[in-house]
Amino acid sequence: MRSGKITLAHGSGGRLSRELIEREILSRFTAGALAALPDAATLPRPGNELIFSTDSFVVSPLFFPGGNIGDLAVYGTVNDIAVCGGKPLWLSLALVLEEGLELSVLCAVLDSVKNAAQTCGVQIVTGDTKVVQRGQCDGMYLTSAGVGERLPAFALGQSRLAAGDAVLTSGPLGDHGMAVMSVREGLNFQSGPTSDTGPVHRLVAAAGELSSAVKMMRDPTRGGAAAVLNEMVSGSNFDVVLDEANIPAAPNTRALAEILGFDLLHIASEGRFLAVCERAAAEELAQRFRRFPEGAGAAIIGSVAAGQGRVVLNTVTGGRRLVSLPEGELLPRIC
Amino acid sequence: MRSGKITLAHGSGGRLSRELIEREILSRFTAGALAALPDAATLPRPGNELIFSTDSFVVSPLFFPGGNIGDLAVYGTVNDIAVCGGKPLWLSLALVLEEGLELSVLCAVLDSVKNAAQTCGVQIVTGDTKVVQRGQCDGMYLTSAGVGERLPAFALGQSRLAAGDAVLTSGPLGDHGMAVMSVREGLNFQSGPTSDTGPVHRLVAAAGELSSAVKMMRDPTRGGAAAVLNEMVSGSNFDVVLDEANIPAAPNTRALAEILGFDLLHIASEGRFLAVCERAAAEELAQRFRRFPEGAGAAIIGSVAAGQGRVVLNTVTGGRRLVSLPEGELLPRIC
Repeated sequence: MRSGKITLAHGSGGRLSRELIEREILSRFTAGALAALPDAATLPRPGNELIFSTDSFVVSPLFFPGGNIGDLAVYGTVNDIAVCGGKPLWLSLALVLEEGLELSVLCAVLDSVKNAAQTCGVQIVTGDTKVVQRGQCDGMYLTSAGVGERLPAFALGQSRLAAGDAVLTSGPLGDHGMAVMSVREGLNFQSGPTSDTGPVHRLVAAAGELSSAVKMMRDPTRGGAAAVLNEMVSGSNFDVVLDEANIPAAPNTRALAEILGFDLLHIASEGRFLAVCERAAAEELAQRFRRFPEGAGAAIIGSVAAGQGRVVLNTVTGGRRLVSLPEGELLPRIC
Repeated sequence: MRSGKITLAHGSGGRLSRELIEREILSRFTAGALAALPDAATLPRPGNELIFSTDSFVVSPLFFPGGNIGDLAVYGTVNDIAVCGGKPLWLSLALVLEEGLELSVLCAVLDSVKNAAQTCGVQIVTGDTKVVQRGQCDGMYLTSAGVGERLPAFALGQSRLAAGDAVLTSGPLGDHGMAVMSVREGLNFQSGPTSDTGPVHRLVAAAGELSSAVKMMRDPTRGGAAAVLNEMVSGSNFDVVLDEANIPAAPNTRALAEILGFDLLHIASEGRFLAVCERAAAEELAQRFRRFPEGAGAAIIGSVAAGQGRVVLNTVTGGRRLVSLPEGELLPRIC
């Protein structure tokens, strides 16, 4: 029995999140695929292996510029399966609804779930609905789980990292976090940040015959790029070295992050992924991503070098700094 | 856009639950296995088919006589897969935690999850952890999803019902609902009702070569036996006729239900299932169940007759009444 209490920082995607998961979750459930801290598990099956993933969504507010909790719940699980090298096929949807929720709000969210599922070619095949009294949830929480087929062309894992590998992003970073923040804080921009909430599975599939050159993929949700890049190299003999000048971000998103004092690398995206791939394939891979609207902003943002499991940023001003996991809770209920 | 608000009755497992699911969920997501209102979906796969299910758990209080939200989350999904004729294999676990939750409480729940998973021979393979501010959930909500293999010996479906079939329960009914109710209402019995929270997958597997004689299985959770039996015959040309004298219930559970004015058939169980099977196999099936502690109270409680999709009870006093879906919300947050 450990003492202490759960804090918002335990849900941040940062250091305390990771400690909670390592100490209390992984310590109990390490027999399975969980041991590798993945976004999804690989289920051994005759024929193609399956990928299995889940996420709860508690975003506040339910609707934000560019999306709502419904499409977020679909794309979140679709993306977790995709970045594990899977083709998403089937989703479950479990609803926790607050007494007094307007039925019209529920319907609008369910319409978004339906549209998002159609966009991704996945089926919502099973679900559950619970209702709690007023004041026992905030409108609604959704939990999606998903099952997909592993695309055999991918061979992903930290063990494949090599000095010289390239680090790519599929698009500009931080739009989701800053869009939610702007509406939550009542910042009424004429044209504020818009969430990137969307699917990445088409980009993953578009890697095609370059798939074997891809070594790791992760979607930078809670904790942002900083969290997933640190996890990618954690415990390895490699660093990720980012070039700040090459990191794409929408001007409004970058501006708001600066005004509010956030590090763009700590801000969640919900329709992007980061990939490490062989340097020789990187430019071709980025070009393939750019053929899709959701990959139009794909860019090579850094490289892998011999090191000590750190993420280092070469700043635009010529400096060099460590990019650490976020501390504390910057943005509660961002997804 | 429909008008109106979500009420507790929408989460009851009764008539309003069913209307909400039919009007707003199934109307949008009928392409898949959802159309048949199952507890789980069948995923077509080369070789054995897979069963996929999910449930959110919002039970209050988190700990109750006989269990807690942790083992409930494991057994609930294990049982949904089992009663769809599946062998549960892999589970996901998504946590929504309230800021301020005692870490010791979380650890006790996770220990129960671990033990329950071991009991069932399933692995927790993936998960998620979110934290919401104080007052935005009630301690914790858990959502489990599960994947299992379909046991090919079962051929389940309403289309197989025939007049003369037997209706079985794997054990006494209503213990879970009355155990939660007793602690919630502060009724301090010396020996009050104890939840039946537990797995039924061993009983399902024990059907063995009798599996083909089993025509339908359902676990009577929210809405109780009344809800699942009504669903079993809804829209068919058959009635279920129950013999009240043969319906097993623990004395304390029966007494508390009577004191509080509840119909035992409306009260949730969390470690039982009801089965319809060929009459000739019924007694042998019940005997097989009785070989396990969790099936010790198995009993034949009624039969299928030509009819109009209703559930009819022959009462102990010689009367006959319709058993309807529960109306309103009898027991919010029972699971």
